Amino acid sequence: MDRPLVVQKFGGSSVADADRIRRVARRIARERAAGCDLVVVVSAMGDTTDELLALAEAITDEPDARELDMLLATGEHQSATLVSMALHSLGAPAISLTGAQAGITTDGRYGRARIANVEPARIREELHRGNIVIVAGFQGQSAVAAGQAEITTLGRGGSDTTAVALAAALRADRCQIFTDVRGIYTADPRVVTTARQLPVIGYEEMLELAHQGAQVMQVRAVELAWVNDVVIEVLSSFEDAPGTVIREDPLVEQRNKVRGLAHDRNVAKVTVVAVPDRPGVARTLFDPLAAAGINVDMIVQNVGHGGATDLSFTVPRVELARAKKVLDPIVRELGARELTTDASVAKVSIVGAGLHNAPGYAARMFGTLADAGVNIEMISTSEVRITCMIAEAELSTALDALHGAFELAKPDPVDAAATGRAAG
Amino acid sequence: MDRPLVVQKFGGSSVADADRIRRVARRIARERAAGCDLVVVVSAMGDTTDELLALAEAITDEPDARELDMLLATGEHQSATLVSMALHSLGAPAISLTGAQAGITTDGRYGRARIANVEPARIREELHRGNIVIVAGFQGQSAVAAGQAEITTLGRGGSDTTAVALAAALRADRCQIFTDVRGIYTADPRVVTTARQLPVIGYEEMLELAHQGAQVMQVRAVELAWVNDVVIEVLSSFEDAPGTVIREDPLVEQRNKVRGLAHDRNVAKVTVVAVPDRPGVARTLFDPLAAAGINVDMIVQNVGHGGATDLSFTVPRVELARAKKVLDPIVRELGARELTTDASVAKVSIVGAGLHNAPGYAARMFGTLADAGVNIEMISTSEVRITCMIAEAELSTALDALHGAFELAKPDPVDAAATGRAAG
Repeated sequence: MDRPLVVQKFGGSSVADADRIRRVARRIARERAAGCDLVVVVSAMGDTTDELLALAEAITDEPDARELDMLLATGEHQSATLVSMALHSLGAPAISLTGAQAGITTDGRYGRARIANVEPARIREELHRGNIVIVAGFQGQSAVAAGQAEITTLGRGGSDTTAVALAAALRADRCQIFTDVRGIYTADPRVVTTARQLPVIGYEEMLELAHQGAQVMQVRAVELAWVNDVVIEVLSSFEDAPGTVIREDPLVEQRNKVRGLAHDRNVAKVTVVAVPDRPGVARTLFDPLAAAGINVDMIVQNVGHGGATDLSFTVPRVELARAKKVLDPIVRELGARELTTDASVAKVSIVGAGLHNAPGYAARMFGTLADAGVNIEMISTSEVRITCMIAEAELSTALDALHGAFELAKPDPVDAAATGRAAG
Repeated sequence: MDRPLVVQKFGGSSVADADRIRRVARRIARERAAGCDLVVVVSAMGDTTDELLALAEAITDEPDARELDMLLATGEHQSATLVSMALHSLGAPAISLTGAQAGITTDGRYGRARIANVEPARIREELHRGNIVIVAGFQGQSAVAAGQAEITTLGRGGSDTTAVALAAALRADRCQIFTDVRGIYTADPRVVTTARQLPVIGYEEMLELAHQGAQVMQVRAVELAWVNDVVIEVLSSFEDAPGTVIREDPLVEQRNKVRGLAHDRNVAKVTVVAVPDRPGVARTLFDPLAAAGINVDMIVQNVGHGGATDLSFTVPRVELARAKKVLDPIVRELGARELTTDASVAKVSIVGAGLHNAPGYAARMFGTLADAGVNIEMISTSEVRITCMIAEAELSTALDALHGAFELAKPDPVDAAATGRAAG
């Protein structure tokens, strides 16, 4: 087997209708003609998953989790067979496989299964027969006794994870994620006009960008790629243009600078005002939120005065109403003065693998925002990221100012070398 | 296991939307509350199968057979999960199974697979757990080595076959086919206003009615029921009314009369005029039609005059254009004078298990048609049927005249006894 093996993944918008499916098939056939073995992972067509969810909700408020997974998995079965048919009509030998047929087994948790194992014997066999293998993304079967295996889905964006897991199991030479954008940018190009596409980005930086709302790829898929050392290329399915390579970045030390900006509008701030400052208060507040499945982020506790303190944190904006319902009785019980919320906030982050070694970046970020007249309400940091919460109305101003201050529009001289290696 | 076991099948129109699915679920839950174990076979929702076919055809003129089966099978997966969800929401325990999970294996022929075996261990287990088992109809997996099994579909109307096969394998007490009509009639009630629903009909009579265009049930399903002695009840999913029981009819000898009329408009007449009257001519004409998958029926060859003869036969009207294309060069080669076709014909049949013992029926049929001014163009007979081809314009006149002549509107006194037994 001297032919290079490439795993490609096409998202729902890339296979949204018959025309797009034929276009994707032409692209796959071209790659094949160039001499590659190909495993192609597809998502469900366009809004199919949402339509199936709506159908289930028209029947019952609480669809059974097992049945819902069986239902949703049909979306990817359909797109996989259609892409295979389109390849046949181009004279390219192809076969579609369900997640189960592709050898993907999961931990059996409906709706949010994790891949437990990939046993790609059938895929290898089909490749050996000369077939392009089309795999239904987003799913696998639970690893139980024969005849009892159930279909489980991997949750939203699970097709990215399918592609990375297959690339790892097959030791693929490349793993290409085709999306409706060209790649990863220094900032969201819909907001910052000078945003520049990055030729290469490290796993850790990509994770922070993904976490902070630059949702080109699912966080889980990036994590899986990092652990398994799978080099990912993110690129557009609608044009022939170089994408962004996500990989271990050996040039981090030479770079030591901000690589990009992330922002997130799906955020709301919650403040518990004048809560008694005694041990266990945070747990009393956050345990019930965790039990309700609400993610809490950016927790800030002010220094207490007179036995009371203010505690602020953020939750996803879509969860704010539920969070308030959970917290209201607890806040009364704790004897806090009140619970205030603010849904018109946003997070803006600078991301770069070198940030934690260079404290000057935080100061430059805060200074830039101050100069632009943007007030910082909360701050949080990680190894590769500094995040400020600001008023949503000032988000665009903040992004433009930071993009300029960190010279993100200017190509990084180190990138040329990195790209050369990534393409090899 | 003293509870009676009932297999029910609901067709596509019975589960066409969320409202109908909820209605079907209520009906199933009611039956369950009455103390039955239930296995329910469902077809795809409404026009889903046609929509999936259209999608495939939008991508390629010749969809790969394997991929098409994978694609079409998703329709029944979807309806099965939705019916199961609807039952859950009524508090009735239920689980949906694919054909493969239900233990249905086939001979592996894509698009027209035959059931090779049913191993209902999983179904029995789920029944034992107290579940109503919803089975995706129309499909099974090919019986090959583990990990290589493929999804195969049983062809149009295959869900009827699934239901009968499961009823046979499970030794069910009843097999109910829910449709959009109340049962089997003495004639098509849309054409003959005095048509009467039959309380009971024999397998052989039912087969002839089905073959001749009374398409309430698929021929294959009736054959399978006959071989396995499965008693079928055909009834309406939209009203609570007694249906028609299909079973071995022990009262045939006492009946000895016409049980019903069938008709078929999907027919066209082909005549090869003045073809040389020598051995092998029929084969030369019919072998290529068989190879093209075109069914030929009602073959009539006139007595030859002067070394030439006229040969007439019928083909399905939808196949006429293809049949002409196949035959034109052959007719020239054979030296026949010409090929004429007539698509404005129809078949009308009298059906009854006693017909072959009572030659008077044929005479009465021909006489009745003559009295009604209907010209007979061709005649064919079987053990339980006499069919005449007539002009399509005279079909309604012919059906009314025959329905009156054979007193079909009048209940059969023997039926009361038969119904009593069938219900037991």
